[in-house]
Amino acid sequence: MINEHSLRAARAIDGERLWRRHAEMAKIGATQGGGSNRQALSPEDAAGRALLLGWARARGYAVSIDPIGNLFVRRPGTRADAAPVLSGSHLDTQPLGGRFDGVYGVLAALEVMEALDDSGIALPRPVELVVWTNEEGSRFAPVTMGSAAFAGALPLESVLATKDAAGLSVADALAETAVRCPVEGSRSFRFPVHAYLEAHIEQGPVLEAERKTIGVVSGIQGLRWYNVEVTGETAHAGTTPRARRKDALRAAIAMVTALEALTDDVADAIRFTVGRVEVRPNSPNTVPDRVLFTIDLRHTDAAVLDAITSRIDPICQQHRGPCAVRVTETINSKPTAFDRRIVGLVRAAAESLELSHRDIVSGATHDAKYMAPLYPSGMIFVPCERGVSHSEIENATPEDLAAGARVLAACIAELALE
Amino acid sequence: MINEHSLRAARAIDGERLWRRHAEMAKIGATQGGGSNRQALSPEDAAGRALLLGWARARGYAVSIDPIGNLFVRRPGTRADAAPVLSGSHLDTQPLGGRFDGVYGVLAALEVMEALDDSGIALPRPVELVVWTNEEGSRFAPVTMGSAAFAGALPLESVLATKDAAGLSVADALAETAVRCPVEGSRSFRFPVHAYLEAHIEQGPVLEAERKTIGVVSGIQGLRWYNVEVTGETAHAGTTPRARRKDALRAAIAMVTALEALTDDVADAIRFTVGRVEVRPNSPNTVPDRVLFTIDLRHTDAAVLDAITSRIDPICQQHRGPCAVRVTETINSKPTAFDRRIVGLVRAAAESLELSHRDIVSGATHDAKYMAPLYPSGMIFVPCERGVSHSEIENATPEDLAAGARVLAACIAELALE
Repeated sequence: MINEHSLRAARAIDGERLWRRHAEMAKIGATQGGGSNRQALSPEDAAGRALLLGWARARGYAVSIDPIGNLFVRRPGTRADAAPVLSGSHLDTQPLGGRFDGVYGVLAALEVMEALDDSGIALPRPVELVVWTNEEGSRFAPVTMGSAAFAGALPLESVLATKDAAGLSVADALAETAVRCPVEGSRSFRFPVHAYLEAHIEQGPVLEAERKTIGVVSGIQGLRWYNVEVTGETAHAGTTPRARRKDALRAAIAMVTALEALTDDVADAIRFTVGRVEVRPNSPNTVPDRVLFTIDLRHTDAAVLDAITSRIDPICQQHRGPCAVRVTETINSKPTAFDRRIVGLVRAAAESLELSHRDIVSGATHDAKYMAPLYPSGMIFVPCERGVSHSEIENATPEDLAAGARVLAACIAELALE
Repeated sequence: MINEHSLRAARAIDGERLWRRHAEMAKIGATQGGGSNRQALSPEDAAGRALLLGWARARGYAVSIDPIGNLFVRRPGTRADAAPVLSGSHLDTQPLGGRFDGVYGVLAALEVMEALDDSGIALPRPVELVVWTNEEGSRFAPVTMGSAAFAGALPLESVLATKDAAGLSVADALAETAVRCPVEGSRSFRFPVHAYLEAHIEQGPVLEAERKTIGVVSGIQGLRWYNVEVTGETAHAGTTPRARRKDALRAAIAMVTALEALTDDVADAIRFTVGRVEVRPNSPNTVPDRVLFTIDLRHTDAAVLDAITSRIDPICQQHRGPCAVRVTETINSKPTAFDRRIVGLVRAAAESLELSHRDIVSGATHDAKYMAPLYPSGMIFVPCERGVSHSEIENATPEDLAAGARVLAACIAELALE
């Protein structure tokens, strides 16, 4: 099913070069704990971009940038007017981020382009690498800002006006980045693309636990976020009988317990997390008058998400006791299903390369989410150590990274023949 | 049962003067929200002491101070060598404290001494007012520092070395206070005292709710504090199945729910409070790896406290799931029973003055706790608005404050005759 030609491209992947480049990129914004701090459009992010563009220019690839700072690196095809096969991810990190999240998808795409050159493979379609701006959203909200703006899901004007905690706008930070890392070509949003593929570490424990090398990503879970604010009344812990208390924490705990019961599915497919709790005044001898807790709920099936979320407010009201409660939805992101043909191609490539694999749904969101409605899109996952991500100790093996890049090379070569 | 002589002392209480002095004291360290900020041994605390001593000296009362800064104001008796009747409370406040907590017990005792003078009543025993240093414990830990040091429950040396958040020691702060508010006489710890009485706002809702003016305080609840630390593992909220999570918050919530079930007594006499919760990393999309919560448990009966506390660690272990848990006791304060004769005297005084009353156990701790083992001791409570205390909006009525001072006057006059 996969051409010998495409498998030759896969075998040309230089795993050692790919690993070395991760190490070089990690030096920029290196943290004491062995991770990286290259927040979006910071001087470190600009230095990371410049390092990448140095490698690209050494190969003679053309580089360009769009109005939100997404970078493109182009390996030409033999059919000058053909829409490119696009692949990439992001170089920005969390404040205490790892060496692989995002970086891998960028460096794997570059490695594919170089492997094609090294093995003298000419393809009809151009192959383009993309570096999406501000995927992490830790400096400027929201996450996946660059791909969302590219796709038209966020208006450019409001994105450019978004400010960081220090009051600097995205527009200002883009201007600073342009000085530090000049790019000659300019690009518009939503240009024609034949297919989009993104390689990424899993950011979860499944592949490692099941000893699979390749995750064939069928889609991205839907995500719903809620803030639940419970309001009671402060009271002295020593003097106030239970019957006279309006204990916001007691009510919040009853709500979370009931929501856990609702979401404890036998299949263990519902992801329900209360990750943040703020208690006021948070003093051992004062009955709390206000508790805020967050709900992060994910599932692959929009109908399941709708059924659960329709129960959140009623359950919170039912368990509020003498307190008041307000439930606010803060994120509603529908599930994404990737193109069936692309998903099949990734699976076939893993098979042909004799790599263990399994279908998997992405629990985290990715830039690919905004490409899926525009172009035939897909993702390739590789394992990461203990599923740990957004952490300085994030880790992956050179072998797994090379295997993922080989699958990416086979898929890109296959698609670029079409 | 109460002498006419003692009732005459009670009737000499000037409620208007008592109320006015609360307003004058509240001006020192006044907060925007209508409360007071006079933390222990601060310049404001020194100014509050100086205001009090001004009133005392105007009456010709002798003033003295002990090594931890407890202040004494003496109205002489006709029997020069008789042990005094001691009464007082504290002038220091929480950072955003109220106008009555502690202040009332000090000003009520002064009012009694002045009322005795005004009505020309001579008593065999001296009457002494005490201002205990640092009852609140908000600047220097622990609470009731002055009375504990006086009673020998805390060693003076370690108390003097205790530092505030800015690194200033109690010894330094006492020296500063001595410059700002000089006191001529010196006093030793644990001098002979005939009886100790402390008037205080209830700091709870019971008297107001039951429309009683006087709380006849039979004792102080026992208090146990625990820190419960639950340790799990961080994980990505989107990618980690429930079966692979070590969710410290989920475990903590199960523990608190089980502890609530243990302490939900029909009589509503157990005071169980979880007032503080710290969640790490406290991010909506990260499974928490560490939760610390506090337990504040109070009851009048040491046997009940022992029975409950023996179950805390087993219950936490039982509900820890895949996490680890460590339970640490941080406070173990036994219940205090006041002297039965003093309690009876307070009840009889309220009866004779035709004031509505009920027996009550103090939920909060007080300096009287450290007097009870040394001297026959008791307390008199008056209602406070909605039970609110340790708050700028703490409130009480002039009528209730005057009524409490009248009961105090009758009891002091009665005891000073003995």
